[in-house]
Amino acid sequence: MTQQPTRPVVVRFECTGTATGKMRNELDVRMVTPMEERFTLASDEGPFHGGDASAPPPLALFIGGLTGCIMTQIRAFAKRLKVNLTGLSVETTVEWQWTPKAPVYETAPKSFAMDVIIESDDPIERQRQLLDAAKKGCFLEQTLGVSNTIRHRLKTADGWLDA
Amino acid sequence: MTQQPTRPVVVRFECTGTATGKMRNELDVRMVTPMEERFTLASDEGPFHGGDASAPPPLALFIGGLTGCIMTQIRAFAKRLKVNLTGLSVETTVEWQWTPKAPVYETAPKSFAMDVIIESDDPIERQRQLLDAAKKGCFLEQTLGVSNTIRHRLKTADGWLDA
Repeated sequence: MTQQPTRPVVVRFECTGTATGKMRNELDVRMVTPMEERFTLASDEGPFHGGDASAPPPLALFIGGLTGCIMTQIRAFAKRLKVNLTGLSVETTVEWQWTPKAPVYETAPKSFAMDVIIESDDPIERQRQLLDAAKKGCFLEQTLGVSNTIRHRLKTADGWLDA
Repeated sequence: MTQQPTRPVVVRFECTGTATGKMRNELDVRMVTPMEERFTLASDEGPFHGGDASAPPPLALFIGGLTGCIMTQIRAFAKRLKVNLTGLSVETTVEWQWTPKAPVYETAPKSFAMDVIIESDDPIERQRQLLDAAKKGCFLEQTLGVSNTIRHRLKTADGWLDA
């Protein structure tokens, strides 16, 4: 394993989304810091949105990312905390409220739940300590736990407009 | 396009993550309501976490999902709000803080930014109205904008333990 930083670092990801098919988006994702990596993804929509279902919808990428994130942390921290781990599975459920506001609609998060199955011969209290540490190390769990502001800019003929 | 609901509905996604390779997770994602769809994804990690980089990392799935989500809403709502749209691209940047706390580490969100390029011959004010509506319709933007609680349960020999 590559040496991990011993001081705080910023982890920066960038994504360029380009609309192509009816509802398909090509997603060019880069990790920029602390190291450079690049990933090619795509999203599409099913019949609900008039898409071609040629790729997973954005919400599938999201819940997959959330599930994978806590799993990475559980596995990485099991080694560091010396908790025996012979298997791991996580069942995540996310619900959103969808409310029509003609001619459009509005959305809101409703509930998040994760059932964690750690296969280990260590006592449940040690497994619980592992899960507690993993929650704090999980970028997405920590992101969802606070209210975040997203800055938006809209491209105009004269430059960027805060929007 | 399939008829969309005229009353509020719950949109429910489930994901079963199963640890397989060194850091790889198979991610079986289902939309359960308001309709059933199923998506097969995977996540892995690069050298930072001792993975095989056989699939995108969870953070790449997340930023791809976030970018695709606002793009879906912009395209879907352009039709509903009758804003001309001949092209669309979005540049998303997310930064997290990573802080070592030996023997593990902790994380926190730092900044979110989205630059939106709408190709349209409609005036910028109409484009701005479209973006405003899209923000409210974007499940992930609305999720990130509030503090969410994730319920966790840990499997024990005697059943589920709130953790």
